[in-house]
Amino acid sequence: MPIINKVIEIETEQGINIYNITPHINDFIASTSIKNGQVLVFSRHTTTALAINENEERLLEDIKVFLRKLAPESDRYLHNDLHLRVVPEDEPMNAHSHLMAMMLSTSEVIPIVDGKLALGTWQSVLFLELDGARKRTVFFQIYGESA
Amino acid sequence: MPIINKVIEIETEQGINIYNITPHINDFIASTSIKNGQVLVFSRHTTTALAINENEERLLEDIKVFLRKLAPESDRYLHNDLHLRVVPEDEPMNAHSHLMAMMLSTSEVIPIVDGKLALGTWQSVLFLELDGARKRTVFFQIYGESA
Amino acid sequence: MPIINKVIEIETEQGINIYNITPHINDFIASTSIKNGQVLVFSRHTTTALAINENEERLLEDIKVFLRKLAPESDRYLHNDLHLRVVPEDEPMNAHSHLMAMMLSTSEVIPIVDGKLALGTWQSVLFLELDGARKRTVFFQIYGESA
Repeated sequence: MPIINKVIEIETEQGINIYNITPHINDFIASTSIKNGQVLVFSRHTTTALAINENEERLLEDIKVFLRKLAPESDRYLHNDLHLRVVPEDEPMNAHSHLMAMMLSTSEVIPIVDGKLALGTWQSVLFLELDGARKRTVFFQIYGESA
Repeated sequence: MPIINKVIEIETEQGINIYNITPHINDFIASTSIKNGQVLVFSRHTTTALAINENEERLLEDIKVFLRKLAPESDRYLHNDLHLRVVPEDEPMNAHSHLMAMMLSTSEVIPIVDGKLALGTWQSVLFLELDGARKRTVFFQIYGESA
Repeated sequence: MPIINKVIEIETEQGINIYNITPHINDFIASTSIKNGQVLVFSRHTTTALAINENEERLLEDIKVFLRKLAPESDRYLHNDLHLRVVPEDEPMNAHSHLMAMMLSTSEVIPIVDGKLALGTWQSVLFLELDGARKRTVFFQIYGESA
């Protein structure tokens, strides 16, 4: 039963932005011979996250409003006292982004059946940039049976 | 090392309702020969979710109150402007349900030891209907060693 | 492909406390021959949780403030009516801790590449005590290829 890894790169924009990475995962599965198994999706940053939900443009805007209210950027955070920390000159004040990421997912495991993601009808795998703009990576790992 | 899948169906009631699906998972494990490994539990809807917590009836009521406050149904959501979207006639106004689902889990992986879920004493696997009433499905995938 | 389990014990202090368990996971991986695969980390309590984020001391304080505001201990919870439940004499009033745990993670799956956790630069695996003080356990399960 092979284990195959892939890292994709996403160049994000400033602020909260949501990217549908389901097509990347589908392409990855199709590039392997795995028919029955699972794929692990792993967000590799502390101010990005994953969610599995509906990729409907107006809902994505609701999600942004919701997250901004959940962890307001304007709140007082100790992590944002950059003068009290040893940090690079371009360190962002992004405690709110860390908190949003923590409330969402870092790892998701999705079953594969008949060589396809066994997602429900309305489910998409969403990658959330919560700080940006940056070059970000998402890790995929697939394993399972070929036949 | 076999990989075995199962889909269970749950007929939910209207509103937020919480179902303990641990017995279904236990039955599934018992129906296989897997003794050491893990089970993937996957919620296949954008307005349902999973949580692993205590199945205590008063706590379940606290969870409902908490979720209703976290993402109030009465808030203004763009996703609920049904006249601006291409949707079926019976499309529900359920942006709040999507947001609740996003804050909970879609996938959980639970270790199996000696042919049993290695849950802690007070842990149950809970399936949360956040919109309802509907026919819902939950996906189980088990794999591991038989001996 | 072997599956290897390990349980670690953490003696926590009273209140919300955050422990970096990444070194424990690294030690566990190093004690096996697995080079390519994944590790499942599983929190075995209903008032503890996992998060993968930055282990920066001021951010950890922000996280505590955020969680206390998200599910205030002083709110009214049905689960805290101990006189209406059948419970031991030392049962804590900890509904808020259950709600915090539910909003964080119980299971996380992390890829292993070249015998090391494939975490991003700033990611650490954090174990959150949300009630305490107690003896707590965290379950690790590794599997993958040795070569």
